[in-house]
Amino acid sequence: MIHHDTIVALATPSGAGAIAVIRLSGKDAVAIADACFKSVKNLKKLSLQKTHTIHLGHIIDGNKTIDEVLVSVFKNPNSYTGEDVVEVSCHGSNYIQQEIIQLFLRKGCRMATAGEFTLRAFLNGKLDLSQAEAVADLISSDNEASHQIAMQQMRGGFSSEIAKLREELLNFASLIELELDFAEEDVEFADRTQFKELVERISFVLKRLIDSFAVGNVIKNGIPVAIVGEPNVGKSTLLNALLNEERAIVSHIAGTTRDTIEDEISIGGIGFRFIDTAGIRETKDVVESIGIKKTFEKIDQAQVVVFLADSLNFKVDVFINSFKIEIEKIKNKYPLKPLLIVANKVDKLNENQIKSIKSEIPQIHFLSAKKGIGVDELKDKLLSFVNTGALRNNDTIVTNSRHYDSLLKALDEIEKVKHGLQSGLSGDLLAIDIRQALYHFGEITGEITNDDLLGNIFANFCIGK
Amino acid sequence: MIHHDTIVALATPSGAGAIAVIRLSGKDAVAIADACFKSVKNLKKLSLQKTHTIHLGHIIDGNKTIDEVLVSVFKNPNSYTGEDVVEVSCHGSNYIQQEIIQLFLRKGCRMATAGEFTLRAFLNGKLDLSQAEAVADLISSDNEASHQIAMQQMRGGFSSEIAKLREELLNFASLIELELDFAEEDVEFADRTQFKELVERISFVLKRLIDSFAVGNVIKNGIPVAIVGEPNVGKSTLLNALLNEERAIVSHIAGTTRDTIEDEISIGGIGFRFIDTAGIRETKDVVESIGIKKTFEKIDQAQVVVFLADSLNFKVDVFINSFKIEIEKIKNKYPLKPLLIVANKVDKLNENQIKSIKSEIPQIHFLSAKKGIGVDELKDKLLSFVNTGALRNNDTIVTNSRHYDSLLKALDEIEKVKHGLQSGLSGDLLAIDIRQALYHFGEITGEITNDDLLGNIFANFCIGK
Repeated sequence: MIHHDTIVALATPSGAGAIAVIRLSGKDAVAIADACFKSVKNLKKLSLQKTHTIHLGHIIDGNKTIDEVLVSVFKNPNSYTGEDVVEVSCHGSNYIQQEIIQLFLRKGCRMATAGEFTLRAFLNGKLDLSQAEAVADLISSDNEASHQIAMQQMRGGFSSEIAKLREELLNFASLIELELDFAEEDVEFADRTQFKELVERISFVLKRLIDSFAVGNVIKNGIPVAIVGEPNVGKSTLLNALLNEERAIVSHIAGTTRDTIEDEISIGGIGFRFIDTAGIRETKDVVESIGIKKTFEKIDQAQVVVFLADSLNFKVDVFINSFKIEIEKIKNKYPLKPLLIVANKVDKLNENQIKSIKSEIPQIHFLSAKKGIGVDELKDKLLSFVNTGALRNNDTIVTNSRHYDSLLKALDEIEKVKHGLQSGLSGDLLAIDIRQALYHFGEITGEITNDDLLGNIFANFCIGK
Repeated sequence: MIHHDTIVALATPSGAGAIAVIRLSGKDAVAIADACFKSVKNLKKLSLQKTHTIHLGHIIDGNKTIDEVLVSVFKNPNSYTGEDVVEVSCHGSNYIQQEIIQLFLRKGCRMATAGEFTLRAFLNGKLDLSQAEAVADLISSDNEASHQIAMQQMRGGFSSEIAKLREELLNFASLIELELDFAEEDVEFADRTQFKELVERISFVLKRLIDSFAVGNVIKNGIPVAIVGEPNVGKSTLLNALLNEERAIVSHIAGTTRDTIEDEISIGGIGFRFIDTAGIRETKDVVESIGIKKTFEKIDQAQVVVFLADSLNFKVDVFINSFKIEIEKIKNKYPLKPLLIVANKVDKLNENQIKSIKSEIPQIHFLSAKKGIGVDELKDKLLSFVNTGALRNNDTIVTNSRHYDSLLKALDEIEKVKHGLQSGLSGDLLAIDIRQALYHFGEITGEITNDDLLGNIFANFCIGK
């Protein structure tokens, strides 16, 4: 798995922009760059330059000048990958990017595979495995909470907690294994009382980390919210109203895709993902038959349901009753799913009308998406469904399902150790369970690893990272 | 127009990628970066660092760490803009990009307008105006020819040619204006024979540059080609076959938009732009009535027309005659437009059939888009319509319509000077025409400029450049 060749990839997003960065890493990175680079000042070769310096010049292919560029040089081990790294900052045309990459390929580079730069950083000991995984999370983080967790994990918060427990457990494991060497003398090097305490503590921490996964998962992937309701009650307008603040920030930068934003918004730093409301918009049958398959499918996928109605409809008495029946249907089918009953276009009603509807449907929340009335209150209600306690307390939160899986397995083994200790299990059998627990700890940080596992993890990275 | 504030913008394409680069320029760039940056090694401030050095650390907002970044420092005048410049290379998530930019804005930066970095480079004398314009061309160049011309222009090839003529003309202007001061003494400081020679030479160069615009325009914008023909004759398959080589290169990098590539391909380094073939695909009437408005509209826009037919149809005798009539219709309407008659699916015919069709329509080109037969020959034919002589001779080529406009006006004035010299026009009147010519030369390189002009030019840049 250790690579000795030199890899190259575009590190910035593809497409045209002011500049693009092409990254080389490996033992020949500087030599290959030197073969294609001519300094503007005609100074010494890049190989003779200090690490962390920048040089203005041209990328040349024989007599042809491809671009005027800035070249950054990083000498091993002081680079992201721990190898020699060269970053070429060129003009951001697709054509130039391609030409420079093709040139480096001809000069002996190989196209990097997804995540290969970070894989090398891991293999060279610059990051542990959970930190490496956090890099991918960091890049895909799109709100404050997921960013904060990825940042914490990348800086080693999670690994160091795991590593500390692992070390303590390893100490005891060694002592117990030592006992086995002196089996005939019946000595106990490992204090069983202290060991029980440690196992209890590890079990407690593991359970906390495992519990945090539910929150972590929500934070990483966003909370799925279904907005259901008849056509033209204002679902899109509500989404736009919720989006308002976010979009203003985003619009500073041209080219940000709006479609994606319309589906995912951040409230109080937590991502809320709105499920395929376009699909719901098409169905005409919500009122007559809330039980239709499509709507229930949306509700199935959602963690929170916003049931939106048009206030004007409440002026018709018969509507209130059919609406109440629909609410009951949803509640009966999903007794545990938070349901927000929302009436849009509140500005079309007078005080008395509002009061009389509230007496019929007490939990109803009135708003006007168009005029921005009651929208902030809806945001607060959505946020109230998230347990942000752990986030506020700056606790370690598990967001990665691979880690979650290893933690579950480690807990399983630790519980076996606990019962073994209680039932006076012999040291040799105890040692096996401890080693198994240690194995699963090691999986998380990467002390225990194999090519398949690494292949799977880094395949999810983008090329260039 | 001179700015004293510090600007910030994302310099890399928007979207998620491995890394993103945020660029600051202005007198407070380093101080603002220092206020948000904490070195990992806890070394001295960025303001105390040397120019062209890179520093690993964290972007911090109070107690909150936004990202681990590399910061590059460029001290004025040794930077792109000629001002102090800081480039922050952060993890490429949209969220992180936004957070860092927002932080810099709060610390006193202003969001850069389109092309403002390059505008500052121009105002600080790092580039002349035609070089600055070449930066935008370079970024949007998507084939070898347009890239080569933009590169030449950015490196000053075009400006230096103009500047040299301008200087010589300026010398004569000064001499002639000097004569005016001694008007009563009737002296001639400016040698009229030499001056006539110079004016002839300038006129010759201007005409060559003006003529080059036709080629330049084709190279910059690509050659519009209409592929017309019945549905299912294989227009898309042909386009894919033409694309083949390009796409293999492009596919190394994930996320490159395919739609755009399908419409523009590069043959022998020249861009060929295929006009809305989807639209033609929809019309069912090509064979019955080639005269329909839509098809002629496509042909109107094209510089070359590929008229594609299905070889199988030629097995029907009546088709050959109707096809010949259609060819005549196009030729009559567009006698000067190159028309390529192409028959796809040649593999479905035998030698005799091919021979007999050729005897009816001698100029027909047979190919099989699916099997790749005859496709390279079609590329050669397309390429033969481009006058690449100037390109091969490495002559200066004008691609910018603003330059073209100024060159036309300059030529107009130079012709006036020429006639003035021939008809013995008095020095004071001659001087006026010379000054006008000089004015138009100056417009190109930016000696003569105004805010509106600069505003127009740089508004076409992307933000961050």
